[in-house]
Amino acid sequence: MTGYNIPPLAKLIDKFESLPGIGSKTAQRLAYHVLHMTPDQAKDFATAITDAHDKIRYCAKCCNFSDEELCPICRNKARDNTVICVVESPRDAMAMESTREFQGTYHVLHGAISPLNNIGPDQLYIKELLSRLQDGTVTEVIMATNPTVEGDATAMYISRLLKPLGIKTTRLAYGIPVGGDLEYADEVTLARALEGRSEL
Amino acid sequence: MTGYNIPPLAKLIDKFESLPGIGSKTAQRLAYHVLHMTPDQAKDFATAITDAHDKIRYCAKCCNFSDEELCPICRNKARDNTVICVVESPRDAMAMESTREFQGTYHVLHGAISPLNNIGPDQLYIKELLSRLQDGTVTEVIMATNPTVEGDATAMYISRLLKPLGIKTTRLAYGIPVGGDLEYADEVTLARALEGRSEL
Repeated sequence: MTGYNIPPLAKLIDKFESLPGIGSKTAQRLAYHVLHMTPDQAKDFATAITDAHDKIRYCAKCCNFSDEELCPICRNKARDNTVICVVESPRDAMAMESTREFQGTYHVLHGAISPLNNIGPDQLYIKELLSRLQDGTVTEVIMATNPTVEGDATAMYISRLLKPLGIKTTRLAYGIPVGGDLEYADEVTLARALEGRSEL
Repeated sequence: MTGYNIPPLAKLIDKFESLPGIGSKTAQRLAYHVLHMTPDQAKDFATAITDAHDKIRYCAKCCNFSDEELCPICRNKARDNTVICVVESPRDAMAMESTREFQGTYHVLHGAISPLNNIGPDQLYIKELLSRLQDGTVTEVIMATNPTVEGDATAMYISRLLKPLGIKTTRLAYGIPVGGDLEYADEVTLARALEGRSEL
């Protein structure tokens, strides 16, 4: 029924539906929205997709997305090169950036160790991280992988690699989210929050 | 902050964000998803957008979207040409189609009368509807405009135009939605449901 057998419409709905978090109703709405665009707007949208794809690659230093050899953060001389925040994905780096609290640089692993999905350390950008640590400028590596089994395993694995190098390795704090409700916090989070309590 | 000053990425996020119902977080997720596509997938997606836009126009008969002179429903000889269901948008026609209950044809107005938004009867495809009624094959016009002030006004306006032609004009039933809860139904809907009650 979708797209009433109008092939170009059905195909567009299909493309939208293949995006993450987009169901069939939303895909229909988006496709119809595209049909209501001006020809220029539609062309612009299509170009944005191919352009982003063609022009963006991994930063030679931190493996984050970039349209130049180095990403804007690695190019920025004001950033603190002695601290590296290791994240699983570019979106995690973006989330950290939005706190405006972190002045160091990032390293994007592009995944986490997950034996179930056949992702081992070799599939991640860990070698690239290690090579950044050779010249001794980095003094702290903050592990900001996700608070999941895979994220924890990855943080643990990397911290063991870094130990012989004598570089301080830290992990983001676990605890109750700000604005959250104790009543609804799960036991594990609550136990971690208790464990990591600080003096007032 | 969005797109970390990587222009092609920022532009793509921006394009996604301009779509209806897509907020900044979702736009980011979609843009990153596009970056993770293979080059062929990205090209395919972009082509689907321009193709849909270039190839789809209004059906010469019912003004619904179509990639040919007539839309698949108007081309279908099995459909009942004596009944026309008048809807505001192609998506409404699609919703009606998904019931699989309606065997007649549609007419898409592409909007509803809305003086506040400067949309009068002349901006809608009402002339096209009237011209379909000239040859006397149509015996019933079902007004399936939205149950809003604008939709009601449009239905009323069109039904007045059709009265002199002697064509039966009907309106979709108002009432409580199936699976709904009386307790949460608004008064107006409930009053309409009472008004339209039928014998068991």
